[in-house]
Amino acid sequence: MPVSTPLLDTVPTPEDLRALPETALPQLVDELRAEMIDAVSVTGGHLGAGLGVVELTAALHYVFDTPRDRLIWDVGHQAYPHKILTGRRDRIRTLRKGGGLSGFTKREESEHDPFGAGHSSTSISAGLGMAAARDLAEGDNHVVCIIGDGAMSAGMAYEAMNNAGALGSRLIVILNDNDMSIAPPTGALSAHLARIVSSGTYRSLRETGKQIASRLPRFFYEKAQRAEEYARGFWAGGTLFEELGFYYVGPVDGHNLDHLLPVLRNARTAQNGPILLHVVTQKGKGYAPAEAAADKYHGVSTFDVVTGTQAKPKANAPSYTRVFADTLIREAQDDDKIVAVTAAMPSGTGLDLFGEAFPKRTFDVGIAEQHAVTFAAGLASEGYKPFCAIYSTFLQRAYDQVVHDVAIQNLPVRFAIDRAGLVGADGPTHAGSFDIAYLGCLPNMVLMAASDEAELVHMIATARAHNDGPIALRYPRGEGVGVELPPRGEVLPIGKGRIVREGSRVALLSLGTRLAEALKAADHLEARGLSTTVADARFAKPLDLDLIRQLARQHECLITIEEGSQGGFGAFVLHALAHEGLLDHGLKVRTMTLPDAFIEHDKPDRMYAMAGLDAAGIVDTVFAALGTAATAALRA
Amino acid sequence: MPVSTPLLDTVPTPEDLRALPETALPQLVDELRAEMIDAVSVTGGHLGAGLGVVELTAALHYVFDTPRDRLIWDVGHQAYPHKILTGRRDRIRTLRKGGGLSGFTKREESEHDPFGAGHSSTSISAGLGMAAARDLAEGDNHVVCIIGDGAMSAGMAYEAMNNAGALGSRLIVILNDNDMSIAPPTGALSAHLARIVSSGTYRSLRETGKQIASRLPRFFYEKAQRAEEYARGFWAGGTLFEELGFYYVGPVDGHNLDHLLPVLRNARTAQNGPILLHVVTQKGKGYAPAEAAADKYHGVSTFDVVTGTQAKPKANAPSYTRVFADTLIREAQDDDKIVAVTAAMPSGTGLDLFGEAFPKRTFDVGIAEQHAVTFAAGLASEGYKPFCAIYSTFLQRAYDQVVHDVAIQNLPVRFAIDRAGLVGADGPTHAGSFDIAYLGCLPNMVLMAASDEAELVHMIATARAHNDGPIALRYPRGEGVGVELPPRGEVLPIGKGRIVREGSRVALLSLGTRLAEALKAADHLEARGLSTTVADARFAKPLDLDLIRQLARQHECLITIEEGSQGGFGAFVLHALAHEGLLDHGLKVRTMTLPDAFIEHDKPDRMYAMAGLDAAGIVDTVFAALGTAATAALRA
Repeated sequence: MPVSTPLLDTVPTPEDLRALPETALPQLVDELRAEMIDAVSVTGGHLGAGLGVVELTAALHYVFDTPRDRLIWDVGHQAYPHKILTGRRDRIRTLRKGGGLSGFTKREESEHDPFGAGHSSTSISAGLGMAAARDLAEGDNHVVCIIGDGAMSAGMAYEAMNNAGALGSRLIVILNDNDMSIAPPTGALSAHLARIVSSGTYRSLRETGKQIASRLPRFFYEKAQRAEEYARGFWAGGTLFEELGFYYVGPVDGHNLDHLLPVLRNARTAQNGPILLHVVTQKGKGYAPAEAAADKYHGVSTFDVVTGTQAKPKANAPSYTRVFADTLIREAQDDDKIVAVTAAMPSGTGLDLFGEAFPKRTFDVGIAEQHAVTFAAGLASEGYKPFCAIYSTFLQRAYDQVVHDVAIQNLPVRFAIDRAGLVGADGPTHAGSFDIAYLGCLPNMVLMAASDEAELVHMIATARAHNDGPIALRYPRGEGVGVELPPRGEVLPIGKGRIVREGSRVALLSLGTRLAEALKAADHLEARGLSTTVADARFAKPLDLDLIRQLARQHECLITIEEGSQGGFGAFVLHALAHEGLLDHGLKVRTMTLPDAFIEHDKPDRMYAMAGLDAAGIVDTVFAALGTAATAALRA
Repeated sequence: MPVSTPLLDTVPTPEDLRALPETALPQLVDELRAEMIDAVSVTGGHLGAGLGVVELTAALHYVFDTPRDRLIWDVGHQAYPHKILTGRRDRIRTLRKGGGLSGFTKREESEHDPFGAGHSSTSISAGLGMAAARDLAEGDNHVVCIIGDGAMSAGMAYEAMNNAGALGSRLIVILNDNDMSIAPPTGALSAHLARIVSSGTYRSLRETGKQIASRLPRFFYEKAQRAEEYARGFWAGGTLFEELGFYYVGPVDGHNLDHLLPVLRNARTAQNGPILLHVVTQKGKGYAPAEAAADKYHGVSTFDVVTGTQAKPKANAPSYTRVFADTLIREAQDDDKIVAVTAAMPSGTGLDLFGEAFPKRTFDVGIAEQHAVTFAAGLASEGYKPFCAIYSTFLQRAYDQVVHDVAIQNLPVRFAIDRAGLVGADGPTHAGSFDIAYLGCLPNMVLMAASDEAELVHMIATARAHNDGPIALRYPRGEGVGVELPPRGEVLPIGKGRIVREGSRVALLSLGTRLAEALKAADHLEARGLSTTVADARFAKPLDLDLIRQLARQHECLITIEEGSQGGFGAFVLHALAHEGLLDHGLKVRTMTLPDAFIEHDKPDRMYAMAGLDAAGIVDTVFAALGTAATAALRA
């Protein structure tokens, strides 16, 4: 049954929205919410966050002159209502599909997305840069950053707040607080107070008061200033933000347009300094199944709108994440030095399960990857065995900590790197493309990649046993290949790979999960008369030099294959081959990596094909290297 | 004249110190200060910070049971007095010299350095990890982190504070505040208050009060709790820390042992939760020339103790940093879109000069590299041309921002990467070894390296002109090679190198400042009958494929040379050679990079020799590749 949205149909752009009378907005937000629920029911994606900001989104576009005024949605997965209101409604049912809308904000997609997102906590920095640019150009537009309470735990947000307070640029930060642990005083009195303190009258009275007080001796002036801030903070909270130099207003009920609109209008007229507007919202608001769910339908597959029942894609094998969790729990049962660290991704990394089994040995530090890694280093320095489980893309946030606190000190932190490689619908912001390159260049680092879920079990055991320095294991998003899982992991010899299939002319040296495609490619090649060896390198660092020598000396052609950027495993193999003089005699070597481009979101298989990292791509590469043409038949 | 230190001579270890009567401490700290001044006068190094914490260092070792209690000095350059007191006095005059003591804390050096440092703002994370480990092991030792006010601006410190407040582990953080912009109330009254609020009696009264209040309705309980915190915060400051879950004590005069010792003793007896002890110190304290200097003798060369006059090493050429600053100023004079961003390193990066010329177009965001990069991205998104000047090693802190906010969005942020390569006395924590690898793997990134200071001038002009996406230029620490500087930089063609010397048998392809050594090596090789081409790649990305093809096809041997780790320029060249089939016919290719090890601090020349990245190393590599022996003569 299609959604009936008679009013929403009349406002394709924010200008149309702004032409509506204020009395029409309640109906509009109802229709906007219904449209978003219906759209996500057919695409899947992030639902709960968007439901929480339907009123806020409409109110912002109603009050501000977008896109001249910049709206920056932190993380971006709450931006679906924003996309519907900013000329992308006709494509909203293509969300996260190949060629369709991104699941995040994206500059290429619309002038209404002045800054793209995906990772959290970047919005205030970006917004402050835009505000500084506006001030230099003597412009008068507004910059509004909308950031969740979780994202506020990241150091980057604090750095930006601190700098905003010091710069004093005109900037509006909206704290979208849907986890207000203390029952929020968001009733009529609070709304009244928020309206008063955000009003120009109050702010100008305050400035006058400040000017009078500034003629007092400094001690009294400072105390008077502090007293005013504290009086507001005392009733409302927000002193943290005041200390950072923001003018705090709130909390305001984010679902009540009568409360929101006047406060936003007041914020718009403020002439100096950064303002923090604290808006309290409810994730999943207005859709009963989401409101009732523990995760508020944060991320969903397709679902039935009436019942809220989500489609369960049939899994052929357990996910790598699940295998990691189960295995780490088993290892921890007989090793009480094993502890686990996550940066606000307990369920994404499987550490929610570990936490149920070992609550005291599990540390969720918040969205704080930098701290997570050095915290783990502190645990390691005292003899514990921390497994720091972080997605490849998010570990980029803690790169300096990996270098400076872990690798230089050679501390045995275990990095469990989930979502390594391409990640499908989340697209380039979430792809784990660079970890082999950025970790493999570090002295002391041991770097493994699992070619299937049984290998992952062994690598966890190996990481547990490796107590001489840092070790990382990477594994992809999604389900395993379906191999039988060993009852216990074996400790692998460090820096040793394995030959999976013996041949004589072509050698395929794979790191990680492209091994299955390499084996398929070997079948094709054998069928064409090319005897093919397939090896699983297991380690990107240290390299198995014996294996590499053997492959180089006994084959005409050597192909490395990895799901990572250039400068990674293939590069290390080339360095070693060059160093050993194994390239001096005409070995036909090729390195297959991810292409030097950010790959847009799509179905994983299509992304691999585009990257050339499937069996057909491998076969093509071998034939091109050997100088044989006509491989088109193989693709058929 | 040797320093007379009769009392200090009797306390080689902290245990000896703790055996002294409290009345002896004033003399001890005087001698400790004199000894440190004398030592640094012969070694050079960080002086001002250490002078500021002489009393604090002695007081901490006096009150706490070190090394069982962990002292973690943030950054580490204030740790010289700590080194003197912890068994390293006999080597204190080897500071920062090859084979001598590190200029920072270092785990290998002493059990009194439980966590190494170099980069700022890591101490609370590491300390919290140690505290968590202690709690798991049911230990009872203390963990004390000493962190400066500047380091508190980094997001990492905030992440750690936030997590410490949530975890509630027993942890003492000492805020060493030597930039208290508001005149600190550090007199007798304040000391009295600090002593009271840090006392067990007060804290237990507070707990009782909380318990009574907790029986009130929640609203009143929360307000009562807040009122108590605010009452303390109102008089003393520190509300920010209270909001993060710390119990705030202070401020205390960090040079007054009578104030410090009782507060430290009280902190030691606190049984629950994290404590923030705010200590006010004066950088350079107790040494008149340092106190009088604008930089408080933050970092000094060797100096005359009596006059404070520092030795000025004679420079043969302007430093790369200076050339960067002068050139950027010149470019900015006719381009008002150029702006500059630094993360608390205005003089280190030369942006202090830019700031004098263009105060409104210069942004010092504090120790906040993550924010700096995304702030720059925000500026770029509005049409400005930000030059983000960050040391190679510190850019590691902003890696995710480079990937996610700059490269994916293809925004034209210019990265001016100072201190790329080895850095001498600062050692491995400050070496810029990895930037070619971690930036070169990123799509959209353009990456240049200057081979001399004239090239740097051209590359700045090139970065200004390149408005299609991100571009980075790397250059080393120290002075240029002495070439004449062009009046204006020329815009270089993107991705094009240059042949510097033509030959026929050996090709040396250098990226960056090893070019001079490559030319020296070429002289040696020619003298041995090996005609040698030398090329300056200029770009690590995109590669000059025409040049690489030419070098590969027309020479028997191709050597790449760079001052960076594996997985960098040499790797990209190998990838390209493999892809193009240029390795298929027996080209003798070798890649010269920094070794896969962290290189300890030493004189730069010795570090290059150890790394093999000097003329002799290049010659050796060529002869080894060509299979000719007996190169020893060349070294003579």
